[in-house]
Amino acid sequence: MTEHDPGGYLDPTKPQALEGITVVDFTRVLAGPTCTRMLADAGARIIKIERPGIGDDTRQMGPFADDGTSEYYRLANVGKESIAVDLKDPDDMALVRSMIKHADVVVENFRPGVMAGLGLAPDDLVAQHPRLIVCSISGFGQSGPMHQEPAYDTVVQALSGIMDATGWPDGRPTRVGTSISDIAGGIMGYCGVVTALVARERTGRGTTVDIAMLDSTFVLMQQCLMDVLGRRVRPTRLGNRHPFMYPFDTFECSDRPIAIAVGNDRLFETLCNAMGLTHLPADARFATNVNRCANHADLKAAMEKVLSTDTCETWRSRLVDAGVPVGMVLNIEDTCKLDQIAVRGMIKNVGGFDVTGTPLKFGTWDSVGATIPSPDLDDCGELLRREFAPRPDA
Amino acid sequence: MTEHDPGGYLDPTKPQALEGITVVDFTRVLAGPTCTRMLADAGARIIKIERPGIGDDTRQMGPFADDGTSEYYRLANVGKESIAVDLKDPDDMALVRSMIKHADVVVENFRPGVMAGLGLAPDDLVAQHPRLIVCSISGFGQSGPMHQEPAYDTVVQALSGIMDATGWPDGRPTRVGTSISDIAGGIMGYCGVVTALVARERTGRGTTVDIAMLDSTFVLMQQCLMDVLGRRVRPTRLGNRHPFMYPFDTFECSDRPIAIAVGNDRLFETLCNAMGLTHLPADARFATNVNRCANHADLKAAMEKVLSTDTCETWRSRLVDAGVPVGMVLNIEDTCKLDQIAVRGMIKNVGGFDVTGTPLKFGTWDSVGATIPSPDLDDCGELLRREFAPRPDA
Repeated sequence: MTEHDPGGYLDPTKPQALEGITVVDFTRVLAGPTCTRMLADAGARIIKIERPGIGDDTRQMGPFADDGTSEYYRLANVGKESIAVDLKDPDDMALVRSMIKHADVVVENFRPGVMAGLGLAPDDLVAQHPRLIVCSISGFGQSGPMHQEPAYDTVVQALSGIMDATGWPDGRPTRVGTSISDIAGGIMGYCGVVTALVARERTGRGTTVDIAMLDSTFVLMQQCLMDVLGRRVRPTRLGNRHPFMYPFDTFECSDRPIAIAVGNDRLFETLCNAMGLTHLPADARFATNVNRCANHADLKAAMEKVLSTDTCETWRSRLVDAGVPVGMVLNIEDTCKLDQIAVRGMIKNVGGFDVTGTPLKFGTWDSVGATIPSPDLDDCGELLRREFAPRPDA
Repeated sequence: MTEHDPGGYLDPTKPQALEGITVVDFTRVLAGPTCTRMLADAGARIIKIERPGIGDDTRQMGPFADDGTSEYYRLANVGKESIAVDLKDPDDMALVRSMIKHADVVVENFRPGVMAGLGLAPDDLVAQHPRLIVCSISGFGQSGPMHQEPAYDTVVQALSGIMDATGWPDGRPTRVGTSISDIAGGIMGYCGVVTALVARERTGRGTTVDIAMLDSTFVLMQQCLMDVLGRRVRPTRLGNRHPFMYPFDTFECSDRPIAIAVGNDRLFETLCNAMGLTHLPADARFATNVNRCANHADLKAAMEKVLSTDTCETWRSRLVDAGVPVGMVLNIEDTCKLDQIAVRGMIKNVGGFDVTGTPLKFGTWDSVGATIPSPDLDDCGELLRREFAPRPDA
């Protein structure tokens, strides 16, 4: 631990949590590769199966770097070994079967049924290799009336309710400004694989894992679900306001907005003192959180009257000193410049390019994550063909 | 597997993946309880430590059910045993130490330093119990210049860039309509704990785990990060439009919007044929994805001219039949009514109340998740005090 690494997380000499775990990775685009990127960051070996000539779809997708390579591919595939495999060629399929035989985990995000069509049905693979974990990530899962419908992120965002819940009371349903359903599906894929690995280490048994982007986005909706499943109330869009706490919102300062998050009476008194609004906590409209929620517009007006007298940065430092949870509303470019992001190792340079670090920080295990750049197509093909050459007796 | 359970995931007789894992749970509010709720759903035993008299803050938070209990608490704490413990009382602390001694995992989401103040510093606990996993979830992590700043969801959303990325080009930064940073922190906490369990089963070594809500939200920003880290371009708000693919957006039908997600030329041709816009793929403005992105406004106008002639439901069924990824923009109340949500077990009745199911579906392991309702305060106190009574020789 040093000044530049107060958590001791940038130490590259620690052992990796998933060392010795081998993953055969059939995934493409974003949801699946997010799962296997997390497995790579935790120390697993990832063998990425790609189509000869073309590779992962995202190799052809922008944004493109100056050298013409895809930033999309580059960010999502750090830490993986690439092999170009023709899934219609018998010899290549024998190689694939040999790799699976020696692997701990298979991950795929084809449309349901495609793996079975290749002779690699997840259930069959687990039956053949009882310790194997086969994780499938898809839009709607491997079962149910919608399971064969094609799904991409925006479609799942729309169906999950997250788009309808995001935005302003007088505005339209709004997409979350990132592919949240793809990424949630990938993260839940990681959860499923790692949970299955714990169970396998304890019992010796493998399993299929079936992750749906819709299920994964649905559980993010916790707050709206309190209304629907509990009170049977249909949630509406609230802008930046929290449904059950106030002041928990963004507020305009003289130059730009500030986020303030006050969830209890004690913090509200602290906030009012720091803002010179000492009369507010005694005002019946604002005395309790329930009353503050009911009278949120009045409270916002009273607060913005004061906040608009000074800049966001001034208010931020004043309120932080008072112990009030506040934050500036940053563009991701400015988020990337936070010292906090740097000391946590959330941006790392891999092969000359900046990519994201891992949010999983361990005392005992490596927390730097994968340091191998995203592979060129078939960069390990020759080595892998030799290593996993099918043996006649196999 | 039956008609009502085509995936076989509602079978309550399967063994649980994390059976035999015991978790001492100091968490409160949302981020921490989301982590331990996931551990409960995977089969771990969760002992929830609560303050005498008051319990978890969310017991006092709305929304409230007709019987006055908190829906917030009820949804976040399924599957846990509650014990009221006075962390300033020496006898109670001896009990806590005895529970930790017998546990596999400790999870907490106090402000950094609070556990150390209680004599339960995560590093010390792992030193005393080398197989123990101690996971801390906080706003900014246990290290770095901001680690002592208070953080709630809205503050982290603001700082992470997700708020700035969400919304309309002519509008304001917009909160994601759920507490995405709390929930992301909780899910990453689960990832950290389960990863550490795999490593422990393989090596015998425990570890601290340090999860920050900011780190966890940052990695959700993958798409904007392609621009910032790769091209060094500052991302802007795009409404419902995907940054690198088109048509990947919502479009107005005669009654309401529909989400359409077309990521490649082949699908674009399929879409155009289904809409009777057969001349579009040959139009140079729309011939490639790069061109469609550049001319998105023209393409949207051409598509909405046709889509506005019929209802969303009609277009949905027409486009689904053609194999185009489409979805209606649903309010979460309507999402809950989808057959797909039902057959996947994503809503389950526990103790008379509807709560969310688990997105982790396993062939071998239980996929129903916890079936014990959220506990009354201290509901297992007496039993737990007896089971973990400190022994003189301990």
